[in-house]
Amino acid sequence: MISAATLDAFRAIAGPKGLIEDRDLIAPWLEDWRGKYHGEAAAILMPRTTAEVAAMVRTANDLGVPLVPQGGNTSMVGGATPPVDGSALILSTRAMNHIRSIDIAANLAICEAGVILSNLHEAAEKAGRRFPLSLGAKGSATIGGLISTNAGGTQVLRHGTMRALVEGIEAVLPDGAIHNGIAALKKDNRGYDLKQLLIGAEGTIGIVTAASLRLAPAIADRAVAWVGVTDPEQALALLRHMEAQVGPVVEGFEVMAADTLRFVLDVIPGTRQPIETVTPWNALIEIDLDAAADGPGAHDRMEAALAAAFERGLVVDAAIAANEAQAEQFWRMRESASEAERSQGPALQFDVSVPIALMPRFMVEAAAACEARFPGATASSFGHLGDGNVHYHVRAPQGEGPGRGADWIATTGAEATRFVNDLVVSMGGSISAEHGIGQMKIDEFARLTAPAQLNAVRAIKRALDPHGLFNPGKLVPLASAS
Amino acid sequence: MISAATLDAFRAIAGPKGLIEDRDLIAPWLEDWRGKYHGEAAAILMPRTTAEVAAMVRTANDLGVPLVPQGGNTSMVGGATPPVDGSALILSTRAMNHIRSIDIAANLAICEAGVILSNLHEAAEKAGRRFPLSLGAKGSATIGGLISTNAGGTQVLRHGTMRALVEGIEAVLPDGAIHNGIAALKKDNRGYDLKQLLIGAEGTIGIVTAASLRLAPAIADRAVAWVGVTDPEQALALLRHMEAQVGPVVEGFEVMAADTLRFVLDVIPGTRQPIETVTPWNALIEIDLDAAADGPGAHDRMEAALAAAFERGLVVDAAIAANEAQAEQFWRMRESASEAERSQGPALQFDVSVPIALMPRFMVEAAAACEARFPGATASSFGHLGDGNVHYHVRAPQGEGPGRGADWIATTGAEATRFVNDLVVSMGGSISAEHGIGQMKIDEFARLTAPAQLNAVRAIKRALDPHGLFNPGKLVPLASAS
Repeated sequence: MISAATLDAFRAIAGPKGLIEDRDLIAPWLEDWRGKYHGEAAAILMPRTTAEVAAMVRTANDLGVPLVPQGGNTSMVGGATPPVDGSALILSTRAMNHIRSIDIAANLAICEAGVILSNLHEAAEKAGRRFPLSLGAKGSATIGGLISTNAGGTQVLRHGTMRALVEGIEAVLPDGAIHNGIAALKKDNRGYDLKQLLIGAEGTIGIVTAASLRLAPAIADRAVAWVGVTDPEQALALLRHMEAQVGPVVEGFEVMAADTLRFVLDVIPGTRQPIETVTPWNALIEIDLDAAADGPGAHDRMEAALAAAFERGLVVDAAIAANEAQAEQFWRMRESASEAERSQGPALQFDVSVPIALMPRFMVEAAAACEARFPGATASSFGHLGDGNVHYHVRAPQGEGPGRGADWIATTGAEATRFVNDLVVSMGGSISAEHGIGQMKIDEFARLTAPAQLNAVRAIKRALDPHGLFNPGKLVPLASAS
Repeated sequence: MISAATLDAFRAIAGPKGLIEDRDLIAPWLEDWRGKYHGEAAAILMPRTTAEVAAMVRTANDLGVPLVPQGGNTSMVGGATPPVDGSALILSTRAMNHIRSIDIAANLAICEAGVILSNLHEAAEKAGRRFPLSLGAKGSATIGGLISTNAGGTQVLRHGTMRALVEGIEAVLPDGAIHNGIAALKKDNRGYDLKQLLIGAEGTIGIVTAASLRLAPAIADRAVAWVGVTDPEQALALLRHMEAQVGPVVEGFEVMAADTLRFVLDVIPGTRQPIETVTPWNALIEIDLDAAADGPGAHDRMEAALAAAFERGLVVDAAIAANEAQAEQFWRMRESASEAERSQGPALQFDVSVPIALMPRFMVEAAAACEARFPGATASSFGHLGDGNVHYHVRAPQGEGPGRGADWIATTGAEATRFVNDLVVSMGGSISAEHGIGQMKIDEFARLTAPAQLNAVRAIKRALDPHGLFNPGKLVPLASAS
């Protein structure tokens, strides 16, 4: 698809290091990390500077070559996998991996797009600060990808998603122009907010090249508790209680059903039942204090708030981690939930959100409805209660053969997906809380989104990327015939 | 311009109450509250429901009638004043003034666009909560207008601008479709974020009809201090010190030069010098605690932090308000700054922001540069140091006659405006921190904005409002010939 002359034109911009053609080097980047999506690309562009990105985009315009921006390639929705027909080139930001500055007084870091999240964590820690967003893929995921997918994670309750942490942005637009909005301005009401538009746009209308990111004070004192509760309704009441008792220092509030916990205990080495009572539901709570916190320590606050919760009948059983090792152990059980669920055989995985007040109902009713509708399938959920975000798994009927295991996924998966997504939408929820649309959710996005919004999304894409060169086939459903 | 048949078509939608033609009733809404901009409109549309707004917009499309959305008409930049040629109708949201719900557990209020800010304040207070955004025009400004201008105010340091408080939005798009994004979802990564795009869009690509707004806990304990400092650099060091000592409970940090304070003391009845020492600069600091706060009270925290600041040489003199009356008094001096400045004769007023670290330099250098460039003019600034947002005034040379007072504004104002805005842009700042672009700043926005951003703004406007019917002449500079 891509001619040698075209590759030469790109090579001329950044030299041989700026264009990878070695098939062995390219191969890992042609499929997503879960191996669900496979694409083709003649080369990977590796710009080292924003100017090189801009020059490459201008060349792509001149020659009509679509570009697929790629960071750590950790998309959950095939968002960074190139089209199968080989018509596009990958533009990797991984060589743009400098932290340009860390301003301790202003609590700001300026990072290039290819900086890996865990590297920013380390740099912030060395500066006596922290970057309060983390997720499982932190060792690969890049700042550019995290911005382009408005990533979440386990600290959203207190610190918000990536959107809340981005103070300024630099990006190359589809015509090759550089948008320099890197200055961190807390107040800036000059026209439409391009920064906000680029966050979560999955590289379809701009390639983020750098960003100013807000840092938080380092954690000086933390307490982590494992709490047994009867149901998600009680877990939500407990969350409200904790917020009222200890305020915004509640940094994490995760919930997990008993069956998910059982899978974790069965499958993950070194884990053990964290509280004496086996309860139908579990909550993991973290309180973090920084050095400025006055008054009682995190453990004392947790203890007092949980004691009051016991009195109010909001808790069945609870254990506060006695030390950092136990705190890590509690978190490892939560973080192993996905892996443990996967060990139970083929499953459909949903990343959905509903208004927080409706989340308990969703967690209970969606599982029951799914199991009733698809006999033999089992459903469970875990996730970020305080964010209204639940990771919801529907496991295929156990065993092999027709209507079971992988066969069930293949034959019934699409129908079950529509069934769950319909439930989500009926509660005013989102079929993509954290992961974006990419290519995986594009049909369901089109099916379930009102024409008003869909038309606006298409109009914005056409307006900013009239030749359709940025991340084709992602996020924006093609206009239907109707 | 507007025919009787056209008015009939609109009248048919919502009856006689939905269309005001009485010239006396219309007159106050044809000019902005400062009397700088005057427009003309044959009628004001007064929809009572979102469906009526949508029907009116569809009729506007059918008949090619531009609409000027209007809330409390408190724009600082002529953003709600109709065109002078009478080609447009005003669409007022003031009849859509219901608070649909207040959910105490979820800390959410759902408000229609026409709800007046102070009414929301009262309703939140009755519910034991607060809506943490306030500004001088709170008795008139509406939720729809505050969202459409991404309003700021004095609590941005802790709670952010309107953008940070809007959890969901309902709007009518230029084709008459209703975008229903009212559900409050903390995580929602479905395509481009229309909510973020509509916030601050000044009604040019959508009319906000309702929103879900985040409430904060009521203030249980506050402390307000007046602090004398030598210069803005010391004030910024003091802000950093306070943040490190007492954390995010610092809710306000305002600064004011000695001359502005003197004008306040001269002009505003009942004010008096708040500290013994007259210092070149002043800071107003507020610490707020809610009921969940553990540990020392607000006064004790303020006292301890200021004592430490004295030891570090960051404070010349300070007074902590002894009671609520004195706290109000301190704030009244800050809030009277604009009025006091106006009493000094004609002045150019700027609402600008720069990166916070550069703000001290801007406050000092911009005044000096302006006074050197325009002999006889005097400049001073006050504002939200913690937000990098300064209200900067350049007073005309005193007296009357050529080159003085109003004559200076008329003959030299435009040049001085460009001079100040150039300084702002040279520091990476924004020529509109809070007030938006409207019609007042549209030329300077066009002059000072990079083509990449300007082209994107124009493309988005054309894509979403292809017939140019929503708030014509505001925010989007017409494409230049180049």
